[in-house]
Amino acid sequence: MEKFEVHILGCGSALPTTRHFPTSQIVNIREKLFMIDCGEGAQMQLRRSRLKFSRLNHIFISHLHGDHCFGLIGLISTFALLGRTATLHIYAHKELEELMRPWLNYFCHGIDFSVEFHAFDSKKSEIIYDDRSVTVSTIPLKHRVPCCGFLFAEKQTPDHIIRDMIDFYQIPTYELNRIKNGGDFTTPEGNIIPHSRLTTPSNPPRKYAYCSDTIYLPENKPLLQGIDLLFHEATFGGDNEARAKETFHSTAKQAATMAKETEAKQLLIGHFSARYEDENILLKEAKSIFPNTLLAKENLCVEIKPSPRH
Amino acid sequence: MEKFEVHILGCGSALPTTRHFPTSQIVNIREKLFMIDCGEGAQMQLRRSRLKFSRLNHIFISHLHGDHCFGLIGLISTFALLGRTATLHIYAHKELEELMRPWLNYFCHGIDFSVEFHAFDSKKSEIIYDDRSVTVSTIPLKHRVPCCGFLFAEKQTPDHIIRDMIDFYQIPTYELNRIKNGGDFTTPEGNIIPHSRLTTPSNPPRKYAYCSDTIYLPENKPLLQGIDLLFHEATFGGDNEARAKETFHSTAKQAATMAKETEAKQLLIGHFSARYEDENILLKEAKSIFPNTLLAKENLCVEIKPSPRH
Repeated sequence: MEKFEVHILGCGSALPTTRHFPTSQIVNIREKLFMIDCGEGAQMQLRRSRLKFSRLNHIFISHLHGDHCFGLIGLISTFALLGRTATLHIYAHKELEELMRPWLNYFCHGIDFSVEFHAFDSKKSEIIYDDRSVTVSTIPLKHRVPCCGFLFAEKQTPDHIIRDMIDFYQIPTYELNRIKNGGDFTTPEGNIIPHSRLTTPSNPPRKYAYCSDTIYLPENKPLLQGIDLLFHEATFGGDNEARAKETFHSTAKQAATMAKETEAKQLLIGHFSARYEDENILLKEAKSIFPNTLLAKENLCVEIKPSPRH
Repeated sequence: MEKFEVHILGCGSALPTTRHFPTSQIVNIREKLFMIDCGEGAQMQLRRSRLKFSRLNHIFISHLHGDHCFGLIGLISTFALLGRTATLHIYAHKELEELMRPWLNYFCHGIDFSVEFHAFDSKKSEIIYDDRSVTVSTIPLKHRVPCCGFLFAEKQTPDHIIRDMIDFYQIPTYELNRIKNGGDFTTPEGNIIPHSRLTTPSNPPRKYAYCSDTIYLPENKPLLQGIDLLFHEATFGGDNEARAKETFHSTAKQAATMAKETEAKQLLIGHFSARYEDENILLKEAKSIFPNTLLAKENLCVEIKPSPRH
């Protein structure tokens, strides 16, 4: 199975605690690393994770609050010290480039790689990254400042041809790709051997969605339908629902409701307010609505497994 | 005894490791906190130290390399979240204000306190802070960019009057301050009672010097003579003396030589290169020249004790 993992580097919120780093995650898709948000200390946590800095080329920033981006300048400086040469791509609201350029010019002048900023519009969902195995789209969110989540969607991989069938029907090599991608095989005698007899199906493509920071947004349900892993912020518990609304955050209950109504396979909650000494109260609240909920914590790695094919 | 302590928040150098945070220290003088340098993660370490954020009003930045200042913006944002109202003073090279202002305007607009930058000239030693108990002066250093160390010098406190003597000679209250500060007492009969008979001496004032980042600079010896605690960077060991020179850093041996030749009471070494998995090799090297050497480490607190009066 191809790797698709989410590593939590930090899952606290704005106020620092001794328990949490501010927000940052790494999505590892087939050893390509994608960073989501980059709070202060993300580079120390990345070092701790033992993931390779050199495999990280794309950073997605949800919104321009400090606890989601203050770690960028340190991370980029470290890339420079490590002798990086590959272009680093940063996807964010356009103001980030204006803020970062003078710092990059001052602290990272003469570095051997370029930093390219890609601005996105946070009002509608759009594909902002695409390669042969994954697309990344924005998820419009609603917070005190313009904010986007990110949807990582694996592409369908071709089916696997059964080796015995190749031998049995003496299928020529040039036919294999066509068959893997759904074609049938016609024998020299004109008999059609159906695709399903020649192949075992590949795993269904997996999806990961990151929704933070945001109020509860039911209008995103269609976008998130059938998600394999949903990360949803749960800054507060139901005890602070009014405070959540006021500050444009969600409660654990709301995160779980989103997971339930989008028929998510698994929910991961994070971005915990510093007021919760023990976040199990948030976990319990979410589980009462959506049992397959996990509590984010630093250095946790969640593997996204393919769901069984129907 | 009045408190005079140095807390190590971070003692690594530019490359992050899982063992060290980048440079930051807190000097606690009678519960007034002074921060020296503010590498990424300093605010998390400050939180961990259990020192009070509200007692920190003055931050001294030695030079504008990221591992000495990237933590500032996060710390200031946290001050804002904590409802700070007191002015925050930052002493640094003048470029820091130009770099920080747009970030402060964007991320910390509408905060209830002002951030005042005080620029200093790093070419000569000058007093940059002064209150009734301490002065802070710059120590010119030599690094790849303009750089200054800082000398924290406690002021002489008045001697203590022996209570029995006040009663015995019936010394009037209005005479006490004069006597504490060195005066004798003349009785109504005209007899002179010498200061030394009336008082016990106060502790001699203590001094702490922070020297990082720098090459070995013998010309600073007069400035550091008789220092109680000397923090000197020891980025490298003698095995990397050429590399130290090339990068304008010091070796453990050079740090120890500075301590020895300035007759320091104690030496604290830090700013360790990531290449040393075990810094005891640096400690051993320094101790061979200056036995009373300590290895900095995160969360270490060094108390500066008064030296016995001669």
